[in-house]
Amino acid sequence: MDAMEVIRKRRSVRRFKEEDVPDKLLRKILDAARRAPSGGNFQPWLFIIIKDDQLREKSRSFLGDRALRYAESDEGKKELEKHGPDERSRWIEAIRRGRFQGHMNKAPVLIAIFGDTKSPCYIHDCCAATENLILASQALSLGSCWIDPGFGDELTESQLRDLLKVPKNYRIISLVAIGFPAEMPEPRPRKGINEIAFLNEYGRKWGSKQSSA
Amino acid sequence: MDAMEVIRKRRSVRRFKEEDVPDKLLRKILDAARRAPSGGNFQPWLFIIIKDDQLREKSRSFLGDRALRYAESDEGKKELEKHGPDERSRWIEAIRRGRFQGHMNKAPVLIAIFGDTKSPCYIHDCCAATENLILASQALSLGSCWIDPGFGDELTESQLRDLLKVPKNYRIISLVAIGFPAEMPEPRPRKGINEIAFLNEYGRKWGSKQSSA
Repeated sequence: MDAMEVIRKRRSVRRFKEEDVPDKLLRKILDAARRAPSGGNFQPWLFIIIKDDQLREKSRSFLGDRALRYAESDEGKKELEKHGPDERSRWIEAIRRGRFQGHMNKAPVLIAIFGDTKSPCYIHDCCAATENLILASQALSLGSCWIDPGFGDELTESQLRDLLKVPKNYRIISLVAIGFPAEMPEPRPRKGINEIAFLNEYGRKWGSKQSSA
Repeated sequence: MDAMEVIRKRRSVRRFKEEDVPDKLLRKILDAARRAPSGGNFQPWLFIIIKDDQLREKSRSFLGDRALRYAESDEGKKELEKHGPDERSRWIEAIRRGRFQGHMNKAPVLIAIFGDTKSPCYIHDCCAATENLILASQALSLGSCWIDPGFGDELTESQLRDLLKVPKNYRIISLVAIGFPAEMPEPRPRKGINEIAFLNEYGRKWGSKQSSA
C-alpha cells in the first residue's frame, strides 16, 4: 500500500476481531520497527510480544490503578472537574469496573516497547520505532492503537518492567495493541497546517494561500 | 511508493543537492506529520520551517557549543577516551572548525519540531510526527536526517526556543534536515529480530527458526 495513503488512513483501532495475528505478519511489523533511525545507530529498543491473557490483564490493571491515583489526586480532581461536575465520579466508576484501556485485553497481541536508558536518545528512538510499527500494521491491513504506558509515573513503569522481567536499565516507552480491525473509526479532526507551521519564527506565516486548507 | 519499501529504504541523508524543496512537497510532508497519533488527539506539535541561512547556522552553532561543553565535561572526557586516546582532541578540533552537524547548514530546509509541554504525551506525539515527516520525505524522493536538538540540555533548548521566538511552554523535540539527496548511504547494520523481540517476558524466544534471520 502507498506510504502516503497508509499515513493518511491510519486510525487508532480499539475493537479487534478474535482472529490471531500470524507470526509472519508480526515479523514484518517488527522488521519495520527496527528500521527506524536511532541516535548513533544504537537501536536501544526491546519488544515484548504479549500474548498471555494474564499478562495483558495485569498490564491493563496497572494502567487502571494509575488512572485511579490520578483521579484521586488534587491535580486530577481539578482537571476532571473542568469537564463537568460528575465527570470525576464517572471516571472512577469506569476504572473500578475494569473499563480503563479495555481494548488492551481484547487485542490478540500487545507489544510493549522498552528503551535502554544507557542510550542517549532512547525515548525518541523508541517512539520512531513505535510509529514504524504502527504504520507497518496499517500497511498489512491490521489495526493498532498506541497506548501511553504511564510513562513518567515511576510506580507504573516499574510494575510493567518487573511483570515482563525486563532489566532495570530499560524503561517502558509505549504499548501497542494490534489485531485485525473490527471497526474503522472516522478520521479525527486535525489542526490546519497554518496553525502549526511557521516560516523561520513562531507566528510568521508560511506558504501560499493554499495553506489555509 | 509502497509503505514497507519506504520504511526499508529510508536512510539518514547528510549531503543534499542545492535545489530548493518546493512548498508543495513540504506541504505534503507536514500533512503527513500532523496525521501522527497523539494522546487525547491534542496534536501538541509546532513546526518551524527554517530557510534562513543565519538561523540555520545559529542553530548549528548551538549544537556545536553543546558538543564542546560535553567534550570538556568529566563525563564526556571519559566517554570519548573510550574510543582512543586522541578521539577527544579530534572531536574538539572538529567542533571548533564548525564541522559538527555540518549538514544542518547545507540542507535547503531545516524543520524544528516543538512540543507543547502542557500536553501529557508531547514528547511521544512529536516523535511520531517526526517519523511520519521523515517517511513522507522518503516517499517523495527527498532525503532527510533526524538530528538531536540537544534535548534535555536546558541551555541548548532555551537557545533554540528563543532564536525561533517560540513561546516558553514549548520544548524542542527534534530537528530534521531535508533536501534532494546528493548521496544514498548504504543501509546501517541492524540487530537481529531475535536479539530484540521476546515472547511474554524478556529473554524468552519468540517465533520459529526463521527468527534468527
